[in-house]
Amino acid sequence: MEKRTLLLTLAYDGRDFHGWQIQHNANTVQNELQKALRETLGELPPIKGCSRTDAGVHARCFCVSLETSCSIPCERLPLALNCRLPRTIAVLSCREVPEGFHARYSAKGKQYTYDIWNSPCKNPFLVGQITHVPAPLDAERMRENGLPLLGSHDFRGFQAAGSDVRDTVRTVTRFDVTRTGDTVRITVAADGFLYNMVRIIAGTLIDMERGRIPCGTMAEIIESGERERAGFTAPPDGLYLDDVFYDI
Amino acid sequence: MEKRTLLLTLAYDGRDFHGWQIQHNANTVQNELQKALRETLGELPPIKGCSRTDAGVHARCFCVSLETSCSIPCERLPLALNCRLPRTIAVLSCREVPEGFHARYSAKGKQYTYDIWNSPCKNPFLVGQITHVPAPLDAERMRENGLPLLGSHDFRGFQAAGSDVRDTVRTVTRFDVTRTGDTVRITVAADGFLYNMVRIIAGTLIDMERGRIPCGTMAEIIESGERERAGFTAPPDGLYLDDVFYDI
Repeated sequence: MEKRTLLLTLAYDGRDFHGWQIQHNANTVQNELQKALRETLGELPPIKGCSRTDAGVHARCFCVSLETSCSIPCERLPLALNCRLPRTIAVLSCREVPEGFHARYSAKGKQYTYDIWNSPCKNPFLVGQITHVPAPLDAERMRENGLPLLGSHDFRGFQAAGSDVRDTVRTVTRFDVTRTGDTVRITVAADGFLYNMVRIIAGTLIDMERGRIPCGTMAEIIESGERERAGFTAPPDGLYLDDVFYDI
Repeated sequence: MEKRTLLLTLAYDGRDFHGWQIQHNANTVQNELQKALRETLGELPPIKGCSRTDAGVHARCFCVSLETSCSIPCERLPLALNCRLPRTIAVLSCREVPEGFHARYSAKGKQYTYDIWNSPCKNPFLVGQITHVPAPLDAERMRENGLPLLGSHDFRGFQAAGSDVRDTVRTVTRFDVTRTGDTVRITVAADGFLYNMVRIIAGTLIDMERGRIPCGTMAEIIESGERERAGFTAPPDGLYLDDVFYDI
């Protein structure tokens, strides 16, 4: 049987999982997907995720690639897998991609959103799915404060302490902050992200609104390369992997 | 100290609770609210809820009345209570109402919505908060099928089997079905509701779309008064108490 390379896109609610990556003593999205794939394909090919997401982080579009000799047509796989997956994981689509495609290494970039519930009162329907900031946020000012993030910079001040990545230069290709009702959404796309980079960007923008960091200092903070000059690491609740970009 | 009568409005995610009404061996919204009130007011006045909601049913606006001699200003009570309540219950507002006001008996009517996720693929972010119907629904046709619900009718065919309510005449004052993206929302307001009435209305409208009940037969089904002619009881997931109407 000829092998095909498939690209699956998934959405999942991260509250139930200890992130993407397979673990032996904890429930992860990869654990669940492997179980469903084994039952559906009758084999368990190695699967490649587009990134590791942390515990509690969500995905509207997480990409997975795999090679299989199973002949089930692409258009039937999502339904077949969804029946076997927990209700908090959905396979949105499946398509065939060129041999050698790798969900992680073929990615040209990714987009995350960080969602904030900005109202004096908490939202009981989005617990663990949004970060509550009671004090008023000015989305337009946050956008202006974040504009210096755009372009290629050394973001070593925007990674979790203790990271040992050598090359900390990343190119931010899109940055926006919008408000819809009481929801403020920060959107960041880049060719790659350092560990906790989006959560530290979100924390820095929130800290500027709270007056803990002066507005208009983002360029200086980036240039300093000092983690302590950036803001707090915002909690995982509001973080969503939103899109993954490929040249196919 | 002079007594005041207060009206609290709450929102809650019903997934965590065995309904509103206090129970000794199960967690209910009333249990949680009483705990928070006792700590906040330093007393535990009897509290009156606007209705009993079932396990798994949600509320965007649930009303509670109580008499208290505590002097904390109304505008401070929501924040004080919210700190003590679980994250899935929020007190939205508090105001003083005339003596003798009763959240249930003073209500002139209520409005519920029934929310349906209408897409071939499940929504992993709204598990337990919306009812998934994969087959396509035509919201405009559902609206037309439901229009005979409007007005005063004997709704005895639209209550859970075994109910022993004597007067089963209710007046539906608003009925609508709208689609926003993949979400279809049924809205029903009435002067009162029989047990499971909205869930049976939702089930009947869905069954008409699935071809299990002929379209255009709602008037006959109501007139028959037979539970078995109406549709299935749609699950609690999609049901939200949306508003309560008072003449104050």
